Amino acid sequence: MSNDKPLPVHADLFEATLHASLSNAALESMNFLNEIGMRYPDAISFASGRPYEEFFDVGLIHSYLDTYCAHLMRERGWSAGQVRRLLFQYGRTKGIIGDLIARHLELDERITADPESIVVTVGCQEAMFCVLRALRRDGRDVVLAVDPSYVGLTGAALLADMPVWPVRSGASGIDLDDLSAQAARARAAGLRPRGCYVIPDFSNPEGVSLSVPHRRRLLDTAAREGLLLLEDNPYGLFHDGTALPTLKALDTGRRVVYLGSFAKTGFPGARVGYVIADQRVAGRRGEVCLLADHVAKIKSMVSVNTSPVAQALVGGKLLEHGCCLTAANARETQVYQRNLRQVLDGLAARFGGAGVSWNRPRGGFFIVLTVPFTADDAMCEYAAREHGVVWTPMSHFYTKGGLSQLRLAFSQLTPGQIETGLDRLAAFVRDSRSHRPVISTSITISNG
Amino acid sequence: MSNDKPLPVHADLFEATLHASLSNAALESMNFLNEIGMRYPDAISFASGRPYEEFFDVGLIHSYLDTYCAHLMRERGWSAGQVRRLLFQYGRTKGIIGDLIARHLELDERITADPESIVVTVGCQEAMFCVLRALRRDGRDVVLAVDPSYVGLTGAALLADMPVWPVRSGASGIDLDDLSAQAARARAAGLRPRGCYVIPDFSNPEGVSLSVPHRRRLLDTAAREGLLLLEDNPYGLFHDGTALPTLKALDTGRRVVYLGSFAKTGFPGARVGYVIADQRVAGRRGEVCLLADHVAKIKSMVSVNTSPVAQALVGGKLLEHGCCLTAANARETQVYQRNLRQVLDGLAARFGGAGVSWNRPRGGFFIVLTVPFTADDAMCEYAAREHGVVWTPMSHFYTKGGLSQLRLAFSQLTPGQIETGLDRLAAFVRDSRSHRPVISTSITISNG
Repeated sequence: MSNDKPLPVHADLFEATLHASLSNAALESMNFLNEIGMRYPDAISFASGRPYEEFFDVGLIHSYLDTYCAHLMRERGWSAGQVRRLLFQYGRTKGIIGDLIARHLELDERITADPESIVVTVGCQEAMFCVLRALRRDGRDVVLAVDPSYVGLTGAALLADMPVWPVRSGASGIDLDDLSAQAARARAAGLRPRGCYVIPDFSNPEGVSLSVPHRRRLLDTAAREGLLLLEDNPYGLFHDGTALPTLKALDTGRRVVYLGSFAKTGFPGARVGYVIADQRVAGRRGEVCLLADHVAKIKSMVSVNTSPVAQALVGGKLLEHGCCLTAANARETQVYQRNLRQVLDGLAARFGGAGVSWNRPRGGFFIVLTVPFTADDAMCEYAAREHGVVWTPMSHFYTKGGLSQLRLAFSQLTPGQIETGLDRLAAFVRDSRSHRPVISTSITISNG
Repeated sequence: MSNDKPLPVHADLFEATLHASLSNAALESMNFLNEIGMRYPDAISFASGRPYEEFFDVGLIHSYLDTYCAHLMRERGWSAGQVRRLLFQYGRTKGIIGDLIARHLELDERITADPESIVVTVGCQEAMFCVLRALRRDGRDVVLAVDPSYVGLTGAALLADMPVWPVRSGASGIDLDDLSAQAARARAAGLRPRGCYVIPDFSNPEGVSLSVPHRRRLLDTAAREGLLLLEDNPYGLFHDGTALPTLKALDTGRRVVYLGSFAKTGFPGARVGYVIADQRVAGRRGEVCLLADHVAKIKSMVSVNTSPVAQALVGGKLLEHGCCLTAANARETQVYQRNLRQVLDGLAARFGGAGVSWNRPRGGFFIVLTVPFTADDAMCEYAAREHGVVWTPMSHFYTKGGLSQLRLAFSQLTPGQIETGLDRLAAFVRDSRSHRPVISTSITISNG
C-alpha cells in the first residue's frame, strides 16, 4: 500500500501500486465504446456492435428454461430432483451443454468437436482470458494479433500480463509475411510467440473476411511457425448465403483454439461462450490430457463454473431450433443483411466523390470508412454533439494509427435510423473536410 | 510451444510451457473436493460444503425473474422494452442489483455501502480473483491468509501470480502476533504484503469465528501494518440467533474489502457474488476514484459483465423477502442448526473417549475432527471404499500439516444420513486407530 510520496488526503491507495492494466488506455477504450452511446442519447449511434433488439422477449427466457428442463427429463430420463440439482447447485467445470454445442458446431460450422474438448465459459471474454492465462508461462510469452484488433482481446492479454505483438492487416486480412516476420522478430528477442488471434469472418473492427486459400495459407504458416491460431467467430453466421469454412473446420492438425460466442447468435445477457481446445498436452510424467482440461482448471479459479441457468437458456434456444443457429437466427440475419445493403447503398449515394472510401463486407456488423481528416475521439465527440451521430474511431483498435478511419456498426439500427444517421454522417464529413473544427482541450474521452 | 526435449507422439504442447498454477496441487485439490462425492455415490459424504437442496424448485427461477421484472416496471417505472434490453443486452460492468444488495447489507449485516462501491461478480470467486489481480502490481506483492485457508482463495492467488503467505490460526482464529510477524518478514524480504484474507464467521475449513474484541484487534493490526482485510462471509447468516458484526460493519477506516457470496444464501447455480471496495484510489494526476472502479475494469476484461438474468434471479429472491436474507433463509438456517447439533451430539456419543477431539462452532457448515492417525487423501479414499463415508482431509487447506484432521461438512445431509454417516465414521476411526491400513500405491487422488 505504500509508495514514496504521501497519499493525498482521503485517499487509501495509489493507482500506481495496482495492476498495470488499470493504467492502460485499452481498458478506458472499452468503457468509451460501451458508454459513448449513453452520453448522447439523441445521437444516432453507428458505434455499438450490439445485436438487434426487436426480437428480444422476456417470455423467451421462461420458454428456453422449460425447453431445456423438458429435454433433460424426456430425452435423457432425468428425474425432477436431478434437474433441480443441476440448475441450482454447483456443477461441472466444463459446463453442461457441451453436447448441444457440439451438435450446433456440426450443423452450422461443419466442425467436429469432442464435447470433452469444449469448456463453456462466461461469455467469449472469459474463454479468451483463460486461454491466454494458460499459454502465459512467464515474461517471455507473447501473443500475436492482427492490428487492428478487438479491444477485448487486448484487455484479456493485458490482464494475463501477456504482450500483444501486432501483425499487419490489409484489405484481404492478416498479412502472412508479416506474421512470419513478427514471429521471427519475437523469437530473436528471446520471446516465445504462442499463438495468433484472428477473426476470419467479418472481423471486428474491420469487417474483413479471409478467402479460403488465405485461410489454408494461414494454417500452413501457423504450423510452420509453431503457433496456435486463436479463432474468434462471433459474426460468421450473419452472411449473405455463402458461408466460408472456419479455420477450425479446415484444421487437421489441432492448430486452432476456437473461441465461441453466443452473444450475437444467442443473446449477450446470458453471458455464455465457450472454447474448443482439443490440443493434447503432455504432462511431467508423460501423461497426456487436453488443453481444455487446463483451461477448465483456470476457469474453476476465475468463476468456478458457468451459471447452469444461463447455460440452460442457451441450451433451450439451441434445442428449440434443432441445434441449428443458422435457422434460429434467420430473422436476425435478414435484418443485418438488409442494414448492410442499406448502409453500403447509402454511402455510395452520399460519398460518390473522391476522398471518402469504405470496404464492402458480405456480412457481419461492421464497415470501415476512410476519411480525409483526423477522426479521433475528440472528433467523435464533436460529431455526436454538433451533428447527432456517433461512430467509433478506428484508432481504438490499432496499436497506433487508424486516425483517419471510422468504424460503422449497423447491427442495432432501424432503416429510418440508418437513413437519418447517414445524412448526419454526411453533414459531419462535409463540415470536417471544409475546416477542422476547433476542439476544446477540455474534451476528454474517458468514461464520464 | 517449444521446449528442449521433443514432444511425445500425438502431443501438441508441454504442460511445462503452460501457466505455473496448472501444475500446482491446489488446483487438483479443488477438483478432488468437487468430485470425491461423485466417485463413491453410495458413500455418505461429509466432504461437500454445498447448500441443502430440499428447498430447490425450478418454479422459483420463473418466479424470481417475474418478481424482478415487476419491480422494475411497477416501482421504477421502466417500460417493457427497457426491461427486455436490460435482461438480454450487454450491461453495466458493476452490475444491476447493487441497490438491492446495499439494502440487504443494511438489513442483514448492518453494513452501509454506497452501491457505487459494489461490483456484482460471477460468484465470489471472480470477486476474489479481480481484487487480487488489482492488488498485484508486480512480483513483490503478496497476500497474507490464515492457514488453513479456503482453496478458492489459494487458486485465485495462484492465477494472479500472487504468493500467499500463511498466517497462523488457533482455536480462536487468526493469530494477530503472527500476522504482524509475517507482514514484517515479508517486508524484510523486499515484498509488499497487500492484504490479509480471512473468514471471520464460521470459517471454511475450520468452522472458527472471531470474537468481537478479536475483530477489533484485527482491524487495528491491519491499520498498523497498512494491510487491507479481504473479508469473505459466505456462512455468517447461518448462526444460532446471535449474530456478530462483520469486520466491514466495524470498519471505520475503509480497511475492509468485503467479498460477498449468494452461493449459500441465494443459490450456487446463479453464480452471483459481489465485492464492496470503497477504498479511494489516487490516480497519477491526483484524481480519486473507488477501488470498485478498478475492480470493475478488471472484471470487464474477465467476463464483461455478470449475466443480468442471473442477477435478476438473485434480485427477485431479495425482493421476495424484502431484501432480508435472514428471513429468506429461515428454513435453511433451521436445517443447518439442526444438523450442527446432531453432528456435535453424535460425535460426543461416539467419541467420548480420549484421542479424538473436535471444535464446537455455533453455526456455519463445518466442524474439524482431530484423530490419532494420519488422515490424508489415501485414507479418505480408504474410508469411502471400505466404510462408505467421505470427508475432506484438512491437509488440502494447509500450506503444510493438518494431516491428522478431517473437515466434516453437514450442510447437505438429512438426519438419517448424519446418523448412518457418523456410525460409519466411528467404524472407520476404530479401524484406523487399531491398525494403519495398507494403502495401495496405485491410489491417486487426482480428478478421475
